Amino acid sequence: MELQAIGVQHPAVRQVQHIQNNTAPNRYRLFVAEGLWAHNMLLEHNAPIDTFFWCPEAIYADEAHRRAEEIAARAERSYRISLRTLEKISERDKPDGLLSLAALPQWAPEDLRLGRQALVLVADGVEIPGNLGTLIRSLDACAADALLMTNRKTRLTHPKVIRASQGTILTVPTLEFPEVAEAVAWLRRHRFTVFLADTDEAINYRKADFSGRTALVVGSERYGIGNAWYDHGFQRVAVPMLGSGDSLNVSVSASVLLYEARARKSGW
Amino acid sequence: MELQAIGVQHPAVRQVQHIQNNTAPNRYRLFVAEGLWAHNMLLEHNAPIDTFFWCPEAIYADEAHRRAEEIAARAERSYRISLRTLEKISERDKPDGLLSLAALPQWAPEDLRLGRQALVLVADGVEIPGNLGTLIRSLDACAADALLMTNRKTRLTHPKVIRASQGTILTVPTLEFPEVAEAVAWLRRHRFTVFLADTDEAINYRKADFSGRTALVVGSERYGIGNAWYDHGFQRVAVPMLGSGDSLNVSVSASVLLYEARARKSGW
Repeated sequence: MELQAIGVQHPAVRQVQHIQNNTAPNRYRLFVAEGLWAHNMLLEHNAPIDTFFWCPEAIYADEAHRRAEEIAARAERSYRISLRTLEKISERDKPDGLLSLAALPQWAPEDLRLGRQALVLVADGVEIPGNLGTLIRSLDACAADALLMTNRKTRLTHPKVIRASQGTILTVPTLEFPEVAEAVAWLRRHRFTVFLADTDEAINYRKADFSGRTALVVGSERYGIGNAWYDHGFQRVAVPMLGSGDSLNVSVSASVLLYEARARKSGW
Repeated sequence: MELQAIGVQHPAVRQVQHIQNNTAPNRYRLFVAEGLWAHNMLLEHNAPIDTFFWCPEAIYADEAHRRAEEIAARAERSYRISLRTLEKISERDKPDGLLSLAALPQWAPEDLRLGRQALVLVADGVEIPGNLGTLIRSLDACAADALLMTNRKTRLTHPKVIRASQGTILTVPTLEFPEVAEAVAWLRRHRFTVFLADTDEAINYRKADFSGRTALVVGSERYGIGNAWYDHGFQRVAVPMLGSGDSLNVSVSASVLLYEARARKSGW
């Protein structure tokens, strides 16, 4: 395969660094995909590939050699880079010769087709990228309809969100609301029953009524759910805390709640 | 408070670095506790404090000043260090003047008092320290009796295990078995029903019988549960995977299973 060779000073290489470090606007929601597994995922989900960087010296699997041609055929732009350049832009110890700037899908609220038993999670102010990615992985696993974000603190294009989501970020619809009030209005308009995950004045999550459309709200690792969510009389549900700690990891508590709702909706 | 001032070359400082990087034997299961929150936890749980390092210039909360005296009174050895030395041994961006080498409790299988509805988790080959710590946090939260480890790949004294456990590592009993066969023998001897978390040929986790003593086995992030666990005819349980991904994060799937078992044992 013949591709134009470029070096570290090339604008495309600099763009990768800007995307990785979030030092430039990113209106097309570009993110960095690295390695064979991530590229298989891009191909499988037909994700738009903006720029492909190919470093043949760093490729160690036959499958990656074959895949490189498919990716180059799909990408808007493709370049060949040296091992030295690859090491500059890779976040891996042992990068494997395939690196792309790809675009996350963009969803609008009206894109969702909500059934009568729809299930969504609201992440309010979640700060740790690994937690947000793990949440998305769980949403995929339990076939939830969407992730809604309010008071967003971490960007979906963060490398750790992508990695923790294990590729499910390409399939789980994500919607961001600039204000809690807008998210509440949207949930009300679509007749969701909203539950706040909170251990204070809450009912045991096994006793909650998860029939109809259900929205579960979880909060930030340090501060919990923001005050604006408490002005609407929503019921609070708790996963009982029986030990010395006072909370669960946010992706764990969200997943326990999501699977409880899924199990009850499915009659498991 | 008057404490002996020491510098970076002092053996106690070097020991912290060895513990942090796992470059020396660590038979007393020492780990590094940093900051006010971690020290409050050490005091609350009466954890043995081997060496306390105090850096008054770096302390920014009044409570930490008061706490320093309590910690020095409890520690075997206490030293004063400079900001420069603290920055050498701290893993934080903004270390807050309290750092200790403390010891994890040591448990033996015979220390456990197992009730008729005992609940344990077996982590087989879990590799990522954050996952192991999060598992321990969930075990505490659902009042499980112990974490058993087989094919252990990550040490409990790893800073990320400590942090993700949110201090619960001081209270949740952890037992390591050098061989799977020994863990199986122990579980059999104590009449545990063992379930392997696996999506292959498994029953839905909501249909499993969690009466009596229950042991749930989860496997490594990449390879799942090791072969040796499959030689005993144990039943497999699965959290259904309804999306595009083929697995959940291991601390998520373990927590969904643990809370299901806890809920059923408690009649929630």
